[in-house]
Amino acid sequence: MSRPVVEFWFEFASTYSYLSVMRIERAAAAADVDIEWKPFLLGPVFLALGWNDSPFNIYPPKGRYMWRDLERLAEKEGLPFRRPSRFPRNGLLAARVALVGVEEGWVAPFARAVMTANFAEDREIGEEAVIVEILGTLGLPGAEVITRAQADANKLALRCQTERAAELGLFGAPSFRVGEELFWGNDRLEDALAWARRA
Amino acid sequence: MSRPVVEFWFEFASTYSYLSVMRIERAAAAADVDIEWKPFLLGPVFLALGWNDSPFNIYPPKGRYMWRDLERLAEKEGLPFRRPSRFPRNGLLAARVALVGVEEGWVAPFARAVMTANFAEDREIGEEAVIVEILGTLGLPGAEVITRAQADANKLALRCQTERAAELGLFGAPSFRVGEELFWGNDRLEDALAWARRA
Repeated sequence: MSRPVVEFWFEFASTYSYLSVMRIERAAAAADVDIEWKPFLLGPVFLALGWNDSPFNIYPPKGRYMWRDLERLAEKEGLPFRRPSRFPRNGLLAARVALVGVEEGWVAPFARAVMTANFAEDREIGEEAVIVEILGTLGLPGAEVITRAQADANKLALRCQTERAAELGLFGAPSFRVGEELFWGNDRLEDALAWARRA
Repeated sequence: MSRPVVEFWFEFASTYSYLSVMRIERAAAAADVDIEWKPFLLGPVFLALGWNDSPFNIYPPKGRYMWRDLERLAEKEGLPFRRPSRFPRNGLLAARVALVGVEEGWVAPFARAVMTANFAEDREIGEEAVIVEILGTLGLPGAEVITRAQADANKLALRCQTERAAELGLFGAPSFRVGEELFWGNDRLEDALAWARRA
């Protein structure tokens, strides 16, 4: 029998994706579930809903609440958190690199390092130099990986994955899929893992 | 020492308020926390954010997800659920009656009965006859309560409570407040209770 699988759809600019990226491998291991990492871009998904910015910026009461909620949740999880001086940051390059990481098996530590840079260290993850440095700390050849990430085929793969997200009915991140079943938000990670085990 | 208190802000048309109304008294009793019931109307709060309808209607992917999520959560909680044939229903009269119930000490069973009518029995809770019947099943004098609920002072009290919700930064329901701390969504009930105990 094959092991249960949860698809993990996340975006590097997304605050609640930070929480899930940091804890999903531990939670999945404890539940004996495999994770398929699905980096994508929220920008096009939000545009299709009529938002040209993060809803947390468009609707200030939601934004004020979210930053406080995130601070509380990070404390509860024992995660470092510093409110980024820019939000949302551009997650395009990081998402392209993450797709290479999915193929090569290092997406999880890469994603944790980028999320930590964005949400705990207030670093500019949209800049190539920052991504190259992160790759270096993971023992990966930064320049080579960037070249692979920026190749046309990989750019297209990310575009297709983002279109697929909208087709699947995703409207935010993180989202989890088990078969046809969709779970939205860091709060639903445990439910998604349980669903995969029972499916 | 006084017992810890959580303010519970809810709206009868709100799907996730259904889940919280049905479980909050049991959860609060287990945590040794008192609940202050704060019925209010989401309509004016949403209008201030630019929404003239429920966001679940305005953004179809969010709506599709919400109905499935609610179905799953109701099953998990062992709650009956039938998708209402009209959404959102008008919760104005029920909210006015609930304010009377807060004064007279029967708001909790009344709220559970109205929520069950809306989200498990597909009944038209905006109609006076339905509310009168629900009051009757609770052993309350329906016509008298309606008269009190529709008195100018009570109407004004609900209007003020709704304006207060927006002032406090609420943007959805259910919401919970502990001192100045805001928690949004049925998923945060346990966190709000824990915060009240530690505060």
